[in-house]
Amino acid sequence: MGRGFDTISFLSDLGVVDEHVGVVKAIVRDLAPHAQIIDLTHHIAPYDVRAGSLALARAVTYLPAGVILAVVDAGHTRAVGIEVAGGKGVLLGPDNGLLASAVAMVGGAERAVVLDREEFHLASPGGILAVRDVFAPVAAHLCNGKDLAELGRLVDADSILPGVVPLSRDFHGVGSEGRNDDFGVGVHAEVLWIDHTGNCQLNIGLDDVSPWGVVEGTRLQVTAGEQTRSVLRVTRAGSLGPGAVGLMLDGSGLLTLVLDRRSAADELSLAAGDQVTVQPSTDHVVSVPVDLRQ
Amino acid sequence: MGRGFDTISFLSDLGVVDEHVGVVKAIVRDLAPHAQIIDLTHHIAPYDVRAGSLALARAVTYLPAGVILAVVDAGHTRAVGIEVAGGKGVLLGPDNGLLASAVAMVGGAERAVVLDREEFHLASPGGILAVRDVFAPVAAHLCNGKDLAELGRLVDADSILPGVVPLSRDFHGVGSEGRNDDFGVGVHAEVLWIDHTGNCQLNIGLDDVSPWGVVEGTRLQVTAGEQTRSVLRVTRAGSLGPGAVGLMLDGSGLLTLVLDRRSAADELSLAAGDQVTVQPSTDHVVSVPVDLRQ
Amino acid sequence: MGRGFDTISFLSDLGVVDEHVGVVKAIVRDLAPHAQIIDLTHHIAPYDVRAGSLALARAVTYLPAGVILAVVDAGHTRAVGIEVAGGKGVLLGPDNGLLASAVAMVGGAERAVVLDREEFHLASPGGILAVRDVFAPVAAHLCNGKDLAELGRLVDADSILPGVVPLSRDFHGVGSEGRNDDFGVGVHAEVLWIDHTGNCQLNIGLDDVSPWGVVEGTRLQVTAGEQTRSVLRVTRAGSLGPGAVGLMLDGSGLLTLVLDRRSAADELSLAAGDQVTVQPSTDHVVSVPVDLRQ
Repeated sequence: MGRGFDTISFLSDLGVVDEHVGVVKAIVRDLAPHAQIIDLTHHIAPYDVRAGSLALARAVTYLPAGVILAVVDAGHTRAVGIEVAGGKGVLLGPDNGLLASAVAMVGGAERAVVLDREEFHLASPGGILAVRDVFAPVAAHLCNGKDLAELGRLVDADSILPGVVPLSRDFHGVGSEGRNDDFGVGVHAEVLWIDHTGNCQLNIGLDDVSPWGVVEGTRLQVTAGEQTRSVLRVTRAGSLGPGAVGLMLDGSGLLTLVLDRRSAADELSLAAGDQVTVQPSTDHVVSVPVDLRQ
Repeated sequence: MGRGFDTISFLSDLGVVDEHVGVVKAIVRDLAPHAQIIDLTHHIAPYDVRAGSLALARAVTYLPAGVILAVVDAGHTRAVGIEVAGGKGVLLGPDNGLLASAVAMVGGAERAVVLDREEFHLASPGGILAVRDVFAPVAAHLCNGKDLAELGRLVDADSILPGVVPLSRDFHGVGSEGRNDDFGVGVHAEVLWIDHTGNCQLNIGLDDVSPWGVVEGTRLQVTAGEQTRSVLRVTRAGSLGPGAVGLMLDGSGLLTLVLDRRSAADELSLAAGDQVTVQPSTDHVVSVPVDLRQ
Repeated sequence: MGRGFDTISFLSDLGVVDEHVGVVKAIVRDLAPHAQIIDLTHHIAPYDVRAGSLALARAVTYLPAGVILAVVDAGHTRAVGIEVAGGKGVLLGPDNGLLASAVAMVGGAERAVVLDREEFHLASPGGILAVRDVFAPVAAHLCNGKDLAELGRLVDADSILPGVVPLSRDFHGVGSEGRNDDFGVGVHAEVLWIDHTGNCQLNIGLDDVSPWGVVEGTRLQVTAGEQTRSVLRVTRAGSLGPGAVGLMLDGSGLLTLVLDRRSAADELSLAAGDQVTVQPSTDHVVSVPVDLRQ
C-alpha cells in the first residue's frame, strides 16, 4: 500500500439533476471516509469531450495532489488511469482524449493502466454505470493507498488516445497570392468556451497578435460569420464603453472577446466551436498589404 | 447519547439558487462540525414527491451509514424520522410518502417518530421553514448522538404514509376476449424518469419481457402516444446505429429507452409519467394471435 | 498568527458551469486543507450586487464562525476584507456594497482592509481573476490564522461602500392632498426576490401592515402593474384555495406573495425589482378616505 490521497477532484458531464454525482460521493465516503471531493463542474454538455478536456486543462495546475476523476462520454470506451507528477496525481477517466491536455500540462503520463480488475469494481443491479461501478470505487482505493498498478493492467502511455486541441492558424500575405487582396495578415481562431457571463474564450494568446504591435488600447478587427467588428485590446472589461467589444487576456492566458457587464456571445452571436478571424484594424493594416500588392 | 453519525445524505426540491441548502449546511456545521453532507440532488421539481421518492430509492443502497435527509414538498405535512437497518440509518422527511420506497429497500421501518420536540428546533425570524428550522437541527442532533426517540414522539411505523409506486401491468391474450385481436401480449409501462441525456427509465425490468424470449438483439415494439417504434434490446447504447432506439437495462436494473448519444425523450416525445406499451415485435408475435383467432 | 478558522461560507455570481468555483476550492484545499467550504449559492445573476447582498443578508445569521466569501461583480472594484463580531467572522468581497447588509446584521464593521498585499495573492497565467488570484488565497490564509491586518492596508470602515437597501414607503391620506381620492392608506413595496417555487418576497414586514388591523384571514389588496388582486393574510400557503393568492410571513420575516403549490411570480407576472402596492382591502378601507374627503 502506498500513502494514498486525501482529495478527489471531480469533473463530469453527469449534471446534478440525476443522483449520480451524489452516489459517487456516497461510495467514496463509504470506502475512503477521509477523502474529500472537489466538484470542478458537472455541467459539461453530455458527450462533449472537447469542452471537458478544456475545462480540465484550465483547472489542472490548481488542483491539489490526489485523484482527478474526469468522466465525459464514459459509456463508449475503456476506463483508464494515468499517473503523473512523480505519483502526486492520478487521473481517471475514459480513454477518449478527455485527459490528454491535462496530462500534458502537468508533465505527461508516467504510468497508464486499463482499469480492468473487476474485483475493485462494484457489482451493478443492472447495466454497468462506469462512473459509479468502476471509477468511484477505484478512486476510493487510490485514496486508501492502493497502487495504480494493482487496479488494472499496465499499458503503454502512448496507447492512450491523444487529445484534440484546436490550434489557431496564422495567415500572411494572402493578398500576394492573388486570392484576396484585402485580407492581409491575421489569425483564424476558434471559440473554445463561452463562460457564464458570455465572454468568448479564443484559442489564441498574446503571442499570436503581438507581432502586429498590439498593446493596450490598440484597435483590432474581428470577423465572426458575416459580421466584422472593431475591437479594442483591453486589460479589463470595465474600461470598455457601453456596447464596445474588447479583446482581453483572460485568467487562463487566452485572448477572449468581452463586453462590459454584457454577453459577447449574444452581441456577436457566437457559440463554442465557431470560427473567428482576428486581424490588425484596417487603418493599421493598410500600409502593409499595399506594399505586398505592388 | 448514542454513537451518532458522520454523514448526512441530502436530497431536496429546494434548488440551488436560493440559499436554503447552504443555510442547512451552515446550521449542521455549527451544531455538528464533524458531520459531512453529501448532496444527492436538489433539483427534484418543486412538490414532485414521486420523483424525489424514486431518486432516493435508486440511491439508498449506496448511501453510507448515517442520516438521510429528504425534503420534497415539506410545507404541507408533519415532519417524521424513521430508523432503519438496526439503527445504522435514520431517514428524515415529510410524512407524504417520499421516504417509503427507500425505507422498504433497506429493510423497512424499525422505529418512527413525529419530530414535534420544539426544543430541538430553531426559532424562526418569520414563518417556519421546515428544512432549516426542523430538519437541519434534528439531523445535527442525530449526528451528535441523540437518540431518535428523544427528538419526537414515537408513532406506529404503519401510520407513516406509504409510497405510490407505479407498477407495470401485463396484458395477455386481449384478442382472445374479442376486444382487440392484434393486441397480443405485452406490458403497459410508465416513464419514471428522464435522465440528463434524455434516456427514459421505465417501471419494468427484464422479468417483464424475458417470458417473450427477449435476448440481446431481439426486436421489440414500443408504442408511445400515436407512435409505434421498433426497438432493439441492447446492453450498450453505443451498439445502436444512428437514430435507432434501444431498450437497455440501466444502472438501476430497470429497462430504459435509449439512443446512441441522443435524447430518447426528444426522439419519442416522452416525459416522466407518460405511458408506453412494450410488446414483442409483430414479426415475432404473429404466430400467436393467428392461432387465437381461428 | 491568530487561531484561524475552519469554515468558509461562499456565495457568488460565478455559476457552476465554468470551473471557477471548483478552482477556488482546490486552492483552499491546497493552502488550508483543514478548511471546509459551504456553498450558499453561486447562482446570483452576473453583476447583480443587490440580489447577492440580499441572499447574503438572509443567510448571515446562520453562518458558523469563519470566513464569508462573497463575490459578485468582482471585476470592477477593489477587494476588501471586513472583520465583524469580535473577530469571529471576516467577510471578503468587492467594495461595491455587496457586504454591507450582512455586515450590519452581525453588528457592523470592526476593522476593514483593502486586500492589496500581493505577496498573499496568486500569480496568474493571464489576466487577474479576483476570485481565484486574490480572494481564494486570502481566505485560506485567514483560515491558517493570518490576521486580517497582515493581508492588506487598514482603512476606515466608513470608507467601504454602503449597501443599497430598497426601503418600503408608506402612504397615508393621499386623497386629502387632492391627487388620488381613492388611494387611501397602503404601502409601496418592491419584490426583492423570486424563490425557486415562484414565491415573491417583498421588502415589507408585519409591522408595515399590522396598523391596519391585519390578522390571519384578513383580506388585503395588492396592485402589481395594471392588476389588482385580493389576497389573504395566511401563515401557510397550504391553507389557500386553488388559485387564491396569499400574503405570508416567510422564513426571513418578510411578507411574501404565495400560492399553494404554484408560482406567484407567474400568476402575477412579477420579477425581482418590480413595484407592488399593498393596501387594506376596499371593503375595509372605505370608511377612512370618505372622512378625509369631506
